[in-house]
Amino acid sequence: MIGTPSTATGEARFLAALHHQQPDATPVWFMRQAGRCLAGYRALRERYDILTLAKTPELCAQITRMPVDAFGVDAAVLFADIMLPLEPMGVSLEIQPEVGPIIHNPIRSRADVDALRTIDPATDLAFVVDAIRMVRAELDGRQAVIGFAGSPFTLACYLVEGRPSRDYAIAKSFMFREPRAWDALLEKLSTVVIAYLRAQVDAGVHVVQLFDSWVGGLSPADYATHVQPHVARILAALRGTPTIHFGTGTASLLEAMADAGGDVIGVDHRQLLDVAWDRIGHDRGIQGNLDATRLLAGWEATSAGARDVLRRAANRPGHIFNLGHGVLPDTDPDLLRRLVDLVHVESAR
Amino acid sequence: MIGTPSTATGEARFLAALHHQQPDATPVWFMRQAGRCLAGYRALRERYDILTLAKTPELCAQITRMPVDAFGVDAAVLFADIMLPLEPMGVSLEIQPEVGPIIHNPIRSRADVDALRTIDPATDLAFVVDAIRMVRAELDGRQAVIGFAGSPFTLACYLVEGRPSRDYAIAKSFMFREPRAWDALLEKLSTVVIAYLRAQVDAGVHVVQLFDSWVGGLSPADYATHVQPHVARILAALRGTPTIHFGTGTASLLEAMADAGGDVIGVDHRQLLDVAWDRIGHDRGIQGNLDATRLLAGWEATSAGARDVLRRAANRPGHIFNLGHGVLPDTDPDLLRRLVDLVHVESAR
Repeated sequence: MIGTPSTATGEARFLAALHHQQPDATPVWFMRQAGRCLAGYRALRERYDILTLAKTPELCAQITRMPVDAFGVDAAVLFADIMLPLEPMGVSLEIQPEVGPIIHNPIRSRADVDALRTIDPATDLAFVVDAIRMVRAELDGRQAVIGFAGSPFTLACYLVEGRPSRDYAIAKSFMFREPRAWDALLEKLSTVVIAYLRAQVDAGVHVVQLFDSWVGGLSPADYATHVQPHVARILAALRGTPTIHFGTGTASLLEAMADAGGDVIGVDHRQLLDVAWDRIGHDRGIQGNLDATRLLAGWEATSAGARDVLRRAANRPGHIFNLGHGVLPDTDPDLLRRLVDLVHVESAR
Repeated sequence: MIGTPSTATGEARFLAALHHQQPDATPVWFMRQAGRCLAGYRALRERYDILTLAKTPELCAQITRMPVDAFGVDAAVLFADIMLPLEPMGVSLEIQPEVGPIIHNPIRSRADVDALRTIDPATDLAFVVDAIRMVRAELDGRQAVIGFAGSPFTLACYLVEGRPSRDYAIAKSFMFREPRAWDALLEKLSTVVIAYLRAQVDAGVHVVQLFDSWVGGLSPADYATHVQPHVARILAALRGTPTIHFGTGTASLLEAMADAGGDVIGVDHRQLLDVAWDRIGHDRGIQGNLDATRLLAGWEATSAGARDVLRRAANRPGHIFNLGHGVLPDTDPDLLRRLVDLVHVESAR
């Protein structure tokens, strides 16, 4: 049915989808929605670096709320970087603009792994907890709040490599050469991720997303051996909180990822949403999956792609609309606003 | 059966696999086998840049033969760059070490597309033709000779983007925004690729590989609309010559790629070889697919991965052993030699 969306809040719409109930319209948010596509964010970035913004609760909360006003999305996602929990573990890092995270002391041995500390998020990452409380209070039930963490594999890729990479050859060769040290690294990272996500839940997020962004670089056999048990432990530890389990390039890992857990599986544009949903099972939710580059091509390409995603989702319960990966920096924010409206109007039940 | 390989030549072994007959052992070569992992190549690179080496037939032939002696592979692959046919089309380019191809006049409009010229490979790329003749004469039937070209999608990604990219956002947004200009670009590139590959066949290569290295960044629907018809035209034009159709990250494109053609489909390590072969059909050959990063981890990781690939191939006719993508620059050449021996010995029929 095409029509005007009801007056349901974004929070109600989002929670209905997370609980596999039928919302009044398909909820929508965008990965990296609080970022460089927003003029307000760019203005703040002229005065502060990324880590300062993320570590100052008032600024973090302000940025987290920006896309709610700018785009009308149904959920605010905490403005944070997946590297944040690594600093209190003893990792020295910076986020270089245009490049990404740079680690000054990359992990290259079992001794390096053993030297990493576990953390107490309530004190070590108190700024995240404080920012979440502020956002929850300010949104006051109008939008859902999403917390997140990087998965141990994706964090380990950065930690071992020391910087973003196309193929994560150093990280993966460490995994192949020293499987026990690798296992210890992912075990320790998983313990930190569990504590970090629980702290976010305690502070008030409605749902957490686990970003396994680079997992698509693994063979299915290596994923099953070296990654899946750790992800399964994290998602089991969070039982009771809705979880979104996301990766890119996961067309050959989908069943294994779904087996590891997640109420909702996030897929990128490389798969057809209906085919992917058939594979993970319709008792699970699915998130995705418009190709983010369509937004660089204008409204015609954007709307055609969005309608194709909605057609494949077929208004089944459990679909959360999103891009395939993060909003690209050069995206016109007006297109994101129109996209949110299109999703809401054309999916209205 | 485990045993000593017979005295069959690499050429015979390779051609048997291409024609879906049972060779005496599984043939093996490596993408980018003639490259930085070889001391002889690095010595030449100290004196000449990559394009000079590729354009000087004697040097090109010498490099092309290096991995035959160094590793014992069953086929020599022409030392060349996929960008070579673009220069006579009017593209100004350089290959930057550590970066890759840089285009000084990237394609950003229909007018840019129309300004590209088609080529006559016999004159415009005579150095390639000459190098192939030399290699064929020097190998004298001991090893097969592989020619290749970039696919129109992968070439267009470089041409529009102007440099290597993680997501090819500029190229893909051009495809979405100006689908007719994109189609004209791929049409023109396909015409050039057909002429270029035919010239290689006329000069004596036994088989050609079409490298669609970046095609895994597309959704299956966009591949079918914007790429597949062009690839199908190229592979149909080469009927009579064995063809290998290669891409990376193609787990959701495999059937569509196989439909486009290719006697052998090349898959990377992200898929399980047996699962991929079931999907493309056992009447087709398959090439792959050891994770190249295993070679950075030493012999134990390399041999375990190779045995897993061979087990999944199960000595069915039509398997050509290769890595999932190119040899990584820091690979120990001794491991490549041992890997060739392992494949030959453990697959001996």
